Amino acid sequence: IETRLPKVGTTIFSVMSQLALEYKAVNLGQGFPDFEPPDALCEALTRAMHEGHNQYAPGIGVARLREQIARKTERSYGRRVSADTEVTVTSGATEAIFAAIAATVRAGDEVIVFDPAYDCYEPAINLQDARAVHLPLSLPDFSIDWQRVRDAITPKTRMIIVNTPHNPSGAIFSEADLDALADVVRDTDIVVLSDEVYEHIVYDGALHQSVLRHPELAARSFVVSSFGKTWHCTGWKVGYCVAPKPLSVEFRKVHQYLTFCTFSPAQFAFAEVLEKMPEHADQLSAFYQEKRDRFRALLAGSRLKLLDVPGGYFQLVDYSEIRDSDDINFSEWLVRECGVAGVPLTPFYETPPSSRLLRLCFAKNDATMEAGAERLCAL
Amino acid sequence: IETRLPKVGTTIFSVMSQLALEYKAVNLGQGFPDFEPPDALCEALTRAMHEGHNQYAPGIGVARLREQIARKTERSYGRRVSADTEVTVTSGATEAIFAAIAATVRAGDEVIVFDPAYDCYEPAINLQDARAVHLPLSLPDFSIDWQRVRDAITPKTRMIIVNTPHNPSGAIFSEADLDALADVVRDTDIVVLSDEVYEHIVYDGALHQSVLRHPELAARSFVVSSFGKTWHCTGWKVGYCVAPKPLSVEFRKVHQYLTFCTFSPAQFAFAEVLEKMPEHADQLSAFYQEKRDRFRALLAGSRLKLLDVPGGYFQLVDYSEIRDSDDINFSEWLVRECGVAGVPLTPFYETPPSSRLLRLCFAKNDATMEAGAERLCAL
Ligand SMILES: CSCCC(=O)C(=O)O
Ligand SMILES: CSCCC(=O)C(=O)O
Repeated sequence: IETRLPKVGTTIFSVMSQLALEYKAVNLGQGFPDFEPPDALCEALTRAMHEGHNQYAPGIGVARLREQIARKTERSYGRRVSADTEVTVTSGATEAIFAAIAATVRAGDEVIVFDPAYDCYEPAINLQDARAVHLPLSLPDFSIDWQRVRDAITPKTRMIIVNTPHNPSGAIFSEADLDALADVVRDTDIVVLSDEVYEHIVYDGALHQSVLRHPELAARSFVVSSFGKTWHCTGWKVGYCVAPKPLSVEFRKVHQYLTFCTFSPAQFAFAEVLEKMPEHADQLSAFYQEKRDRFRALLAGSRLKLLDVPGGYFQLVDYSEIRDSDDINFSEWLVRECGVAGVPLTPFYETPPSSRLLRLCFAKNDATMEAGAERLCAL
Repeated sequence: IETRLPKVGTTIFSVMSQLALEYKAVNLGQGFPDFEPPDALCEALTRAMHEGHNQYAPGIGVARLREQIARKTERSYGRRVSADTEVTVTSGATEAIFAAIAATVRAGDEVIVFDPAYDCYEPAINLQDARAVHLPLSLPDFSIDWQRVRDAITPKTRMIIVNTPHNPSGAIFSEADLDALADVVRDTDIVVLSDEVYEHIVYDGALHQSVLRHPELAARSFVVSSFGKTWHCTGWKVGYCVAPKPLSVEFRKVHQYLTFCTFSPAQFAFAEVLEKMPEHADQLSAFYQEKRDRFRALLAGSRLKLLDVPGGYFQLVDYSEIRDSDDINFSEWLVRECGVAGVPLTPFYETPPSSRLLRLCFAKNDATMEAGAERLCAL
């Protein structure tokens, strides 16, 4: 059969994890921690199974969990939302992103994405027979040039996808970014999809500038997050979408036919830890800042140039002093010859720049970071 | 925003479950058991969490589980498939159905579905800007009129969706149906999507006629199933798709951007029980046949006419002797006034017939069946 996604191969994350396995490399590629979720979470899940929560959850998510998400939204961002009509639990953030796009974007529409862009946006757009309009983030800090955004708007622009903290760069939105975004979409019918899965990982005292803090933006945004990053269980695949009622109505129509509902016992488990451990999310930035700083210290003796990391759990490194090959070649060489897997940035770009950058994940135990850093310092 | 799914409301399953809760009715509506999965399965899941399987599974599914699915496919249907390239684990059968449709169907295409049709097919088709061509199953036994199918084929026909054992009717394919289907698609490029989630629930010694038994069909089919029905855990949402490599390649492209991967610990748990309890699936038909027969015996004293149930875990009843209202009205009346929730058939039709049928789920404990039957016999 003819492909509907001619540009798509296997995601770079799967490719690099596969290579890491093959070459027994230290895997600093795909973004996941190599430590475990809190015991309380696993215990709560086991309890939920034994209490008989093994049949279909409500399609929109378990009420107790939606209630906790609504509370968190108010506590963290001062935004009151209705657990009943504005919060929907999904099978990971990926499903939520797909559902928001499928619910909103039509054939011929344009969706603005910022490169480097997380790799699931464009295929979801293309499956609607719509077009991703790629705007590069400005180097060296991966910021948005808002004038460029204004210039890119056409009558076909249906959606703008933002991502803060940003993957792969770690850049975070400022309040001015929110205002600029609001300016751009004011008096249009453009909706915003805000991917905020790293919402609780921002450094050096910065605030996460969720679009939920901005009432005008929140009124036209799908805000997507997930528990995988926050609770150290990326394989549990429980995410959610917060959106005003008219958007949530359309979102739910699609969601109910994408997955219908999400693994029930985990929903009860997350509800329980959100009730009992509200401090967990608040402490996460400090937890990861220590890891970030340790990783940077370990790499200080290498010939890699370390870019700033305002948020998320990835370190971008400039390897131009080590080799002058493109990042795909470099990352393959690195995993084979040096035994460290990272992620090249090229797959996140429509028009890759000539920069020599690699993404390394520091959501790792000390031993893993040390093993990786030792090999990287030997280059 | 303008809706992309104008015909879609909340699924009838959610609506009826919600009403059942509200009116404290015996819930024989949405299809799920009110008993628990085997202890061994829950224990295996807990063990998988404690063994650290909490991060991303491979997008295509845990190898050990794909291997078991491939073995099962060979053991049950004599079809050897590659666990590596032809089996993909999904977040429930619903995701698999959506991915197969999104991977194959393009704007303007036609997809043949048989009414009454499970409700997730058409929205997935419509989101591709394609059209569902509805062919009614022939009463009283809900069989396919293959001449009618041949007449409905046009150059735009891209896919035929079949479902055996059939939900909501319980009808099952004969070998002749497989041959007729093969005849229809021979020398065309039409692909088949076969929804076989009730594959292990067929009665009176019948064989499940999976399209996987038919080499010519298997070579052009997406075969979708799920562990929810077989292992009494509809809320766990682990399904899969078996398809020849060229179809699986396209399927996986879509799947990786729909959900990326599925809850890891459950994948290890299913792999373990498939290894250790291969007899479970083989005994399932006998297990449910006892329930079917008990339920029918309990309803023998009612004024409901019981249709035959060759497979699946639903009993269709004709209520025309009790009331002459359409099935939506009747099911609402029944849940309110009589305290029993069932599922009307109208939502499964483009052009609902005037029949007076209600679907009742008998995947229930004796006490639940008895409570439901007592109320139904009082009518
Ligand atoms: C869904 S696999 C990719 C995980 C991730 O978010 C990343 O590595 O960026
Ligand atoms: C996905 S909820 C519906 C469950 C089901 O398969 C049915 O009741 O028919």
